[in-house]
Amino acid sequence: MNLKQRTFLLVTGASRGIGREFAHQLSGQIKAKGSVVALLGRNQALLEEAKTQILNSEPNLAVHTYSLELSTARTEDFTKILETARGGNGDFERAIVIHNAGTVGDTSKRAKEIGDTLFLQQYYHINVFSAIALNCEFMRLFQGIPKLVVNLSTLAAIAPISSMAHYCTVKAAREMYFRVLATEEAAPETLVLNYAPGVIDTQMTVQVQREAHDPAIVAMFREQREGKTMLTPAQTTARFIQVLEAQKFKSGDHVDYRDETY
Amino acid sequence: MNLKQRTFLLVTGASRGIGREFAHQLSGQIKAKGSVVALLGRNQALLEEAKTQILNSEPNLAVHTYSLELSTARTEDFTKILETARGGNGDFERAIVIHNAGTVGDTSKRAKEIGDTLFLQQYYHINVFSAIALNCEFMRLFQGIPKLVVNLSTLAAIAPISSMAHYCTVKAAREMYFRVLATEEAAPETLVLNYAPGVIDTQMTVQVQREAHDPAIVAMFREQREGKTMLTPAQTTARFIQVLEAQKFKSGDHVDYRDETY
Repeated sequence: MNLKQRTFLLVTGASRGIGREFAHQLSGQIKAKGSVVALLGRNQALLEEAKTQILNSEPNLAVHTYSLELSTARTEDFTKILETARGGNGDFERAIVIHNAGTVGDTSKRAKEIGDTLFLQQYYHINVFSAIALNCEFMRLFQGIPKLVVNLSTLAAIAPISSMAHYCTVKAAREMYFRVLATEEAAPETLVLNYAPGVIDTQMTVQVQREAHDPAIVAMFREQREGKTMLTPAQTTARFIQVLEAQKFKSGDHVDYRDETY
Repeated sequence: MNLKQRTFLLVTGASRGIGREFAHQLSGQIKAKGSVVALLGRNQALLEEAKTQILNSEPNLAVHTYSLELSTARTEDFTKILETARGGNGDFERAIVIHNAGTVGDTSKRAKEIGDTLFLQQYYHINVFSAIALNCEFMRLFQGIPKLVVNLSTLAAIAPISSMAHYCTVKAAREMYFRVLATEEAAPETLVLNYAPGVIDTQMTVQVQREAHDPAIVAMFREQREGKTMLTPAQTTARFIQVLEAQKFKSGDHVDYRDETY
């Protein structure tokens, strides 16, 4: 895949961690002239930092930030953001959406203790419903031009992990959504990728290490962090760009950082 | 597994289809004296029919019915039902819950068209949140006695199917929930089974055949129905009981009707 094109790029969870790094590195790959980068996140101050970081390397890019609460977002919120960011410019060669935003849930609880339906509703809204609603608007507004749809997946989407009932279930639902999308929409006009970035040194893994009820999970994260075998956001993002460039995946595939076939 | 024990049995979606047949056939397997069967469903009249059908064959069983709207049910609703059905009797040798209730969603829509977050909320409540909330209360109230937790799964929980974005995603989330549960809770005290009953001649498959946007899916269901290769609820329930009796599965496994290794 040739990334050097006039691109509309939207990244959710772009204020920090992997999302911010994805936005930064992809901004350096796409054609500066005529491209638009839209950063979504909760924290406007951090989004502005991410924007400044991008403009420092790519001063000619158009970069926009949008602060949004994903636990209550609805279709019309995404329509407005996408329409505003796109502007009058319908002249993109490719549109890319990176569904990165996500929260790990309450890892202190066992699966048999997560029956609070109000919590589930909010948690699924952030992690599943908002991603689906955004994706539907993205598909509608960029109809007719080549689209790359990326879901930030995880091993937890395909294998059960003790302490992570919340996270595993939304990630399974989300990955399945993008697999059905890939089944229904023809590539290359719609190319779907479920990318599992590996275990990364971010706030999310720190949180799991602090809160998980299963000591084996806590120990696993601690050993990886102390042994420096955890990846950095920069490493996994560079690998992601390699995966895109090599483009050996089929639409809908689950591609893991460590999977050498891609 | 010896099913002939004093059993607390709860079946959701018990008013018709597979749920009703599961309740009926399992009622014939458990020990009549001291067992309790609880039937949950939306339609009270159909639940009463299901109850009568069971009592006709097993007049000594205690059978209760509970009408409940799963799109809004909360933990306290399930607590009340479980406590009422259990009564003063804490003397069960096994407790079984069959998480069967489910709805197929809107198969006329493509994955790129299901961004209505209000619909998603209600749909996930019926198919995921209610099952989790019920399961947590079941685990809590039958702590200390052997429990069998059965999730009615489907091929759609593990493979994407065109036209079925709603259904595939909730079934993937639900199956993952029960896999995490099996990872966290030790067998045999908690034994978890994801049973995929095959394609059954029920109202659900009739609905898919009528509404699915993908003609290939409509044709597949039509051919199976017309060719009489669809299973009946009785067939798949008999196979399910065989699977339990042989008990070759490990807790958390996905067992398909046609999988001969189980």
